[in-house]
Amino acid sequence: MVKEKSEFGLIEWIRRQGVATGAGGAGGNLGVGDGVQVGIGDDMAVLELDGEQVLVTCDMLLEGVHFELETAESQVKKLSVAKEEPAVFKDYPPASLEQVGYKAMACSLSDCAAMAVEPWVAVVAVALRRGMSMAEAQQLHAGLQDAGQKYGCPLVGGDTTSWDERLAINVTMLGRARWGEPVLRSGAQVGDVVMVTGELGGSRRGRHLSFEPRVAEAKLLRELVELHAMIDVSDGLSIDLDHVCQESGVAAVIEAGVVPISEPARRSDDPLGAALGDGEDFELLFCVGPGQADELMASWAKRSQVRLSRIGEIIPTGQGQGRLFLQNDIGERKRLAISGWEHFK
Amino acid sequence: MVKEKSEFGLIEWIRRQGVATGAGGAGGNLGVGDGVQVGIGDDMAVLELDGEQVLVTCDMLLEGVHFELETAESQVKKLSVAKEEPAVFKDYPPASLEQVGYKAMACSLSDCAAMAVEPWVAVVAVALRRGMSMAEAQQLHAGLQDAGQKYGCPLVGGDTTSWDERLAINVTMLGRARWGEPVLRSGAQVGDVVMVTGELGGSRRGRHLSFEPRVAEAKLLRELVELHAMIDVSDGLSIDLDHVCQESGVAAVIEAGVVPISEPARRSDDPLGAALGDGEDFELLFCVGPGQADELMASWAKRSQVRLSRIGEIIPTGQGQGRLFLQNDIGERKRLAISGWEHFK
Repeated sequence: MVKEKSEFGLIEWIRRQGVATGAGGAGGNLGVGDGVQVGIGDDMAVLELDGEQVLVTCDMLLEGVHFELETAESQVKKLSVAKEEPAVFKDYPPASLEQVGYKAMACSLSDCAAMAVEPWVAVVAVALRRGMSMAEAQQLHAGLQDAGQKYGCPLVGGDTTSWDERLAINVTMLGRARWGEPVLRSGAQVGDVVMVTGELGGSRRGRHLSFEPRVAEAKLLRELVELHAMIDVSDGLSIDLDHVCQESGVAAVIEAGVVPISEPARRSDDPLGAALGDGEDFELLFCVGPGQADELMASWAKRSQVRLSRIGEIIPTGQGQGRLFLQNDIGERKRLAISGWEHFK
Repeated sequence: MVKEKSEFGLIEWIRRQGVATGAGGAGGNLGVGDGVQVGIGDDMAVLELDGEQVLVTCDMLLEGVHFELETAESQVKKLSVAKEEPAVFKDYPPASLEQVGYKAMACSLSDCAAMAVEPWVAVVAVALRRGMSMAEAQQLHAGLQDAGQKYGCPLVGGDTTSWDERLAINVTMLGRARWGEPVLRSGAQVGDVVMVTGELGGSRRGRHLSFEPRVAEAKLLRELVELHAMIDVSDGLSIDLDHVCQESGVAAVIEAGVVPISEPARRSDDPLGAALGDGEDFELLFCVGPGQADELMASWAKRSQVRLSRIGEIIPTGQGQGRLFLQNDIGERKRLAISGWEHFK
């Protein structure tokens, strides 16, 4: 949630209205209303009901923005796309409706993982292309239900409409903070080690349709270590780490040589650029105290098959020098543009 | 929620999948999962958290389906539309973005009213037309927030994206059952009196953009009477009463002469047809025991300015003869087609 892909800074504007305020302070009750702790500005909003925390997230997936659909015409495009491998993967090969449904649900499950909360239930609103058949609508719902069932998060309500535009799917998911306090973006501290699960880059080649939201991994992380801050990598490692830095009032440096790069990204012209900028990885990016990282690496290997990497460090903010830096093997450090990245010359 | 405007019967299909089952039995715990009581098939899904009930609804409002936007081109249309008054109002004069935002939030507030629960918080996902300005996005959000503030339901999260299609807005709202058990569609009993708030028909002429969701009225009804079943009139009186009958396993007869017809509907060629079929009224349609209706009418008048009408009765279902009937002043009864209605010959 709150992955604002438009250029409006609308979330900032809404925050300023005072109706819902952001998750600026870690753990604090920002009191936007009765039982509302954290408003706009994290992966999920945190609500309190009789002492138990309920979290809520919504994500709208749009045809042409978050996926392309398999159609007769897109099949032709698919063949032509397969011939080239762009440096940074920004387009999507066509997906089946079942894959789209799976992705819609999995994105919200990933938001739950990012807050380290247990997924509970989901409601789905779908705007179908007019003319879609019952069988097609069922394929979409089968994908939604597949992801929901795998992660114990049933679909409990829905709203289905047809229109003359392309397919839009909104998933709203509730989570319960049964594994401890929700982990916010805002708790990163200077000296923290920055870590990430899995491998990054090139997800649009296919993995974005079948990724496994890191719900179990988030739960395991909670058991093994104190998580200072966490986010899921949806917009891209650099953008999402920047979100953490912004909310925490810190900066970060990434070690270029240790970023885990996915196999499809390694085949590209710019593997590190793809890993830093592609997005849609839905891996967990998190910060732990400096004394805990080694211990976590050791105990993690005994408990999980998922790769875990130390990729950087939280540092103090400078004056007007940006919040994100990239460091090479010999310690040279340069500012990292969050919209992509610049090579070392 | 669950106003399935497509022809798919998708909700029925989803129900059969067993992931989430419908609200077929009044008050019973249908157990679709941990803490989930009522799944797909009512105005809101009912969840239970540590003994307190949380309800959730989502509604996607789509440009061209649920509203038309004011643009240079639509302004021309508005002028031409104003000249004619169709018998049944199915088209929308253009609306401002602020009105659209208000309506999106108010529709979900109306779902809370329909279940007689207190609105709590909302999250909103917006797919903006590409090219919309910051000022335009702010107008939309100002409308959302206006409705939220009026009814004490803050906006706590959001997801904003731009795309090349028309405007889509999804509001997901949580409610709390603080006024007693949620009122389902499924509790109507043979002999019940069917009642409705306000006046019906012609809402698309303007009222659908500024209606007051009947949240206070739902709370007052709870205080004054035992509500057997309730729904808000969104698809149209006949369709929505049919939903109640279907979920309750009963039929209903409406008295043609006492249906409250709105002023714009009275100006149409077919006032009763407009009141029965137009929809978007967002009034409360409910059933109370036969002994309670007179008493309610008397006590209501002392407490509320909103019109309240007795419009019919719940009757047993026949064999294959339909669930909805219309009765004229001399007691002639004929079947009412839920997609519209037929005049007495």
